[in-house]
Amino acid sequence: MTGIALLGAGRIGQVHAKAIAEAGATLVSVYDVMPEAAKTFADRSGATVCDSADAAIQHPGVDGVLVATSTDTHVDLILASADAGKAVMCEKPIGPSLTEARRCINALGERADRVFIGFNRRFDPGHAKVNAAVLGGEIGTLEQLTLTSRDPYPPPLEYIPVSGGLFRDMMIHDFDIARWMLGEEIVRISAEGSVAVDPEIGKLDDVDTAIVSMVSESGKQIVILNSRRAVYGYDQRIEAFGAKGMLISDNPSDTSVKKFGPEHFAAPDAYATFFMDRYTVSYRREIEAFVHMIQTGGKAPVTAKDGFMASYLAEAATLSSKWGRSIELDIEGQATWGNRSP
Amino acid sequence: MTGIALLGAGRIGQVHAKAIAEAGATLVSVYDVMPEAAKTFADRSGATVCDSADAAIQHPGVDGVLVATSTDTHVDLILASADAGKAVMCEKPIGPSLTEARRCINALGERADRVFIGFNRRFDPGHAKVNAAVLGGEIGTLEQLTLTSRDPYPPPLEYIPVSGGLFRDMMIHDFDIARWMLGEEIVRISAEGSVAVDPEIGKLDDVDTAIVSMVSESGKQIVILNSRRAVYGYDQRIEAFGAKGMLISDNPSDTSVKKFGPEHFAAPDAYATFFMDRYTVSYRREIEAFVHMIQTGGKAPVTAKDGFMASYLAEAATLSSKWGRSIELDIEGQATWGNRSP
Amino acid sequence: MTGIALLGAGRIGQVHAKAIAEAGATLVSVYDVMPEAAKTFADRSGATVCDSADAAIQHPGVDGVLVATSTDTHVDLILASADAGKAVMCEKPIGPSLTEARRCINALGERADRVFIGFNRRFDPGHAKVNAAVLGGEIGTLEQLTLTSRDPYPPPLEYIPVSGGLFRDMMIHDFDIARWMLGEEIVRISAEGSVAVDPEIGKLDDVDTAIVSMVSESGKQIVILNSRRAVYGYDQRIEAFGAKGMLISDNPSDTSVKKFGPEHFAAPDAYATFFMDRYTVSYRREIEAFVHMIQTGGKAPVTAKDGFMASYLAEAATLSSKWGRSIELDIEGQATWGNRSP
Amino acid sequence: MTGIALLGAGRIGQVHAKAIAEAGATLVSVYDVMPEAAKTFADRSGATVCDSADAAIQHPGVDGVLVATSTDTHVDLILASADAGKAVMCEKPIGPSLTEARRCINALGERADRVFIGFNRRFDPGHAKVNAAVLGGEIGTLEQLTLTSRDPYPPPLEYIPVSGGLFRDMMIHDFDIARWMLGEEIVRISAEGSVAVDPEIGKLDDVDTAIVSMVSESGKQIVILNSRRAVYGYDQRIEAFGAKGMLISDNPSDTSVKKFGPEHFAAPDAYATFFMDRYTVSYRREIEAFVHMIQTGGKAPVTAKDGFMASYLAEAATLSSKWGRSIELDIEGQATWGNRSP
Repeated sequence: MTGIALLGAGRIGQVHAKAIAEAGATLVSVYDVMPEAAKTFADRSGATVCDSADAAIQHPGVDGVLVATSTDTHVDLILASADAGKAVMCEKPIGPSLTEARRCINALGERADRVFIGFNRRFDPGHAKVNAAVLGGEIGTLEQLTLTSRDPYPPPLEYIPVSGGLFRDMMIHDFDIARWMLGEEIVRISAEGSVAVDPEIGKLDDVDTAIVSMVSESGKQIVILNSRRAVYGYDQRIEAFGAKGMLISDNPSDTSVKKFGPEHFAAPDAYATFFMDRYTVSYRREIEAFVHMIQTGGKAPVTAKDGFMASYLAEAATLSSKWGRSIELDIEGQATWGNRSP
Repeated sequence: MTGIALLGAGRIGQVHAKAIAEAGATLVSVYDVMPEAAKTFADRSGATVCDSADAAIQHPGVDGVLVATSTDTHVDLILASADAGKAVMCEKPIGPSLTEARRCINALGERADRVFIGFNRRFDPGHAKVNAAVLGGEIGTLEQLTLTSRDPYPPPLEYIPVSGGLFRDMMIHDFDIARWMLGEEIVRISAEGSVAVDPEIGKLDDVDTAIVSMVSESGKQIVILNSRRAVYGYDQRIEAFGAKGMLISDNPSDTSVKKFGPEHFAAPDAYATFFMDRYTVSYRREIEAFVHMIQTGGKAPVTAKDGFMASYLAEAATLSSKWGRSIELDIEGQATWGNRSP
Repeated sequence: MTGIALLGAGRIGQVHAKAIAEAGATLVSVYDVMPEAAKTFADRSGATVCDSADAAIQHPGVDGVLVATSTDTHVDLILASADAGKAVMCEKPIGPSLTEARRCINALGERADRVFIGFNRRFDPGHAKVNAAVLGGEIGTLEQLTLTSRDPYPPPLEYIPVSGGLFRDMMIHDFDIARWMLGEEIVRISAEGSVAVDPEIGKLDDVDTAIVSMVSESGKQIVILNSRRAVYGYDQRIEAFGAKGMLISDNPSDTSVKKFGPEHFAAPDAYATFFMDRYTVSYRREIEAFVHMIQTGGKAPVTAKDGFMASYLAEAATLSSKWGRSIELDIEGQATWGNRSP
Repeated sequence: MTGIALLGAGRIGQVHAKAIAEAGATLVSVYDVMPEAAKTFADRSGATVCDSADAAIQHPGVDGVLVATSTDTHVDLILASADAGKAVMCEKPIGPSLTEARRCINALGERADRVFIGFNRRFDPGHAKVNAAVLGGEIGTLEQLTLTSRDPYPPPLEYIPVSGGLFRDMMIHDFDIARWMLGEEIVRISAEGSVAVDPEIGKLDDVDTAIVSMVSESGKQIVILNSRRAVYGYDQRIEAFGAKGMLISDNPSDTSVKKFGPEHFAAPDAYATFFMDRYTVSYRREIEAFVHMIQTGGKAPVTAKDGFMASYLAEAATLSSKWGRSIELDIEGQATWGNRSP
């Protein structure tokens, strides 16, 4: 039986615990900085509560470690798990800053392939279907890619200062999706951010509405649209345009119910407004992939290098938006950008 | 240049006149029981006003006659035109009663093939596309056919007594569509009518809501739904189900605009609520078919026999609904049904 | 903790067992006519294997009994469970014949309200949403109801002779949905059945393709279409048309992916072709409703009387189809129909 | 009767001539640089063939002039018509270069409001409906605008060198739509162009695939996607996202036919692949607006200033794409950009 240690027993940790059981794996040990949270959790699941992350990682029977703690602890826990020879899955982002992310992949070296960064959207059934079709050549050479990500409502204001800003916290998902769809790296980025949803977000030196345009190594064009608020619910779409056609992963609706009345105007039935409703299936499929990775000893479906590159793009977007100009990118993620003037 | 005589200068006559010009034919002569109507009409089109239907039919340069007068005059005008050697197009129905319709086709004999009964829905682009696909075998053997016809609102109450009733006036379109889609005749029919829209219609001994189920020679099953009122506009759909798939001709919308707001529930953009908006294209295509029929000397796309058979089905449906029982049909339309008991 | 006895450890029994656990109830005892099946099952769930149905029913801790055995045993097991004072949920149909179904409700008397007949489609999220909207008056008075039920492929031929025929085995779901949507009883029915899918089904004296038209007490019109084969997957729709609009519960698709290529023609993304994919959610919701019914001591959402009435309609449809004529119905389900002639 | 002079009797001139007749106006005079073309044309319409543009403009009975000649003659003919006191409608673009466009509006002064630049897409029924809804506040403050314009196939290669390039020839439509939807000016633009469709286009120093991101005066964000080839037909959509919802003007389909078969994957029925099929209605509505403008003496729905601003944006996009950097814009269109370095 595949055994898993869970670091962090918060909301997302509980979601994963359920998925671990359904995937036929066993939660062996749990650690949380708040012992009460870990205990409540362990009582329900039968896992052992540990006093430290290291104890949970090293607990007998642990094959893989699931890191679901706060972002500032990610790098140390990934490295500790890897040093203990465990497979790792870590919530996005890989670390709180590009410097930390770089430290992580440098320290990991080739072990980066056994570290799975939890970009759950890759496991959304619609997104995954479009990705397989595009990489399988169904629309010929990909030419333009449009990613739309709008959340139903902004996070609590107190979260904004610790979030790293919209590009690092929210658009990082789209940077990962972009690289996954392209199969190659980005070479230029131009970002625009503005405050349209809530002026308080602006006072905290962040933006809530953003667009990014990018070009890849071979000249493919990518557009990303983000907003912290969409009154109609989660709006997370992929549009892939190629030489032989177009594929769209549209938003799923609650049901296929349609109403026809005198007041005409078309809209789909309700979209999800709670992240667990929207992403139940992708979280489950993500954990299945992690269990499969442990059992086969294979490569992570999203590696630490992928996690680093998404952070690299988020950093560049943040600077591009601040500086009001395009930024050239290094496909290895090594280049840094000194200051505002190009 | 193809010359056409128009009998009846009312609203639908004017629609046809415009289509005649667009189809590259010429309106040569006009007759209407109200000379003023014909005159106004002729002034605009350049056609000659005639004192009688015969004069209009026999006017030099007339190749085809378009009968758009009141239903009670249809049979005589069809026969007069045919006797004069002209191609004929006549608005549906072929005549005011099954007896009249039978008189017409008996008198026409083989000339019935040069009399085009104006069931314009066959010329609707969506319906025509589904018909071509079904007859072309795209869904294998047809097994079930569902026809929905709902009008936006009922006709004026004063029209009800002269309409012949819902089955003869409204559902007759669906009987024609059914035969066109099947490519064979109906052998059994069961009709239900009720008054759901307006009790005044019931007082006039008619119904405003009806369903019919039918079986064809080879056992294909057909369902028809009619209502005199649909608050969301014209609702006229075909669903053809076969061994290899299903084809649906859905309602066309004004535009492809979609609105997404917090109040969820899906509906298409507005459907037409005025018959000329809904059927502009099919009326135009119908007249093009008539001009083509004149020019090629070919067979009418909907013959007098087709017109008769639709009336035969409408008669049977009316009786089935009244008698509360199924009725067996004769594929030549010869059988009559004496009375209520089977 | 709510305890449940499971009678019948076959495929559907296993589905229910999973749902029982997810609904927070406990599977206490299991009985199956094949002891091995029950044992395998019990090993996994922790339930006690019993030697007889009675033992399972009477096992300590059992609050409700779930009957998932073969149809011919339904009535006896329902009655035994009710006599033991247990809440009951029984797979559809209530019994193998109308006579058996009548015996059941007569013996149950007022206890019929605590017997839940498992018409799972009422728990489909889309269907349930349309039902709530219609009964809530969103489209005014209901005027026409169209139910489409087509299965991806026919059952094994050996099942046909024991199935009771299409109307009793398959369309019985639609009869239940019709009564649920109408909120009143049916007074007349006309059925047509034919063999379009597989001639072998005809040799076994059954049909594979059927339409039914019905009228309710207040004159509402209902149409049902059934086929044993739809190459595009499960096709199970409700269309409710009323004075103030129309509601459609359309088929759900796997994803919201759309593909645009040079070969145009619209179809939704894949429909389910395996019943467990199509009805996972409704089975789960159904069991939740049963657990809720046990815990609250309330009335079954679908009672034994409902189960009986669906069988009554199925019987009438079978006869109408054989006799080729409409049949009048008794809203209490008491009338019987002697022979072919009306 | 409103009289119109037509300068240029090519393909688009013929389209307009038909629309002029349908709008109840009269084509009075025609001029074309190829006398034969003008003559053929006049024979059909009854208009007088003139030896020079001036003669056509000054012909008795001319109220308005429709300029449909080659782009290099636009400015002179607009000015000549305005000097003659006529209302003008001119095909887009206003002139072959930004310099020419600026000369035109400077010379026109206040008369610019009576010069209608033919951006026909504003008259597309779906686009117009979304525009009215957005400007009417239906989705609150507009926050993000996405414009997609993809043609079915690229123009002939020989057209590329005289086209001015993709941004000036094709994306100019989107620049006009953007300003129309925003109701304010653009202040920053970043363009990317690449050659994905045909390497021959690249050899001619043009691009065939492009994205642009822009920001408006109040911080609204705009994205434009262009491609010279879409195998599924014209792809011209507007997506307007605001504080209270989203509106999409999607592509219209030939019919509402849907096909359901075993090979699943969703696509709409055929999109237009010929510009006259796609834009029949908008061309007609555009001419109606011109006739209405003549008859009322009112302001052009798209003025020469609008035409100039679209050219200004196209110029900036061309440079931004070449220079690989963002460009700041002057809302009056006065600023020029010296060279590559910012």
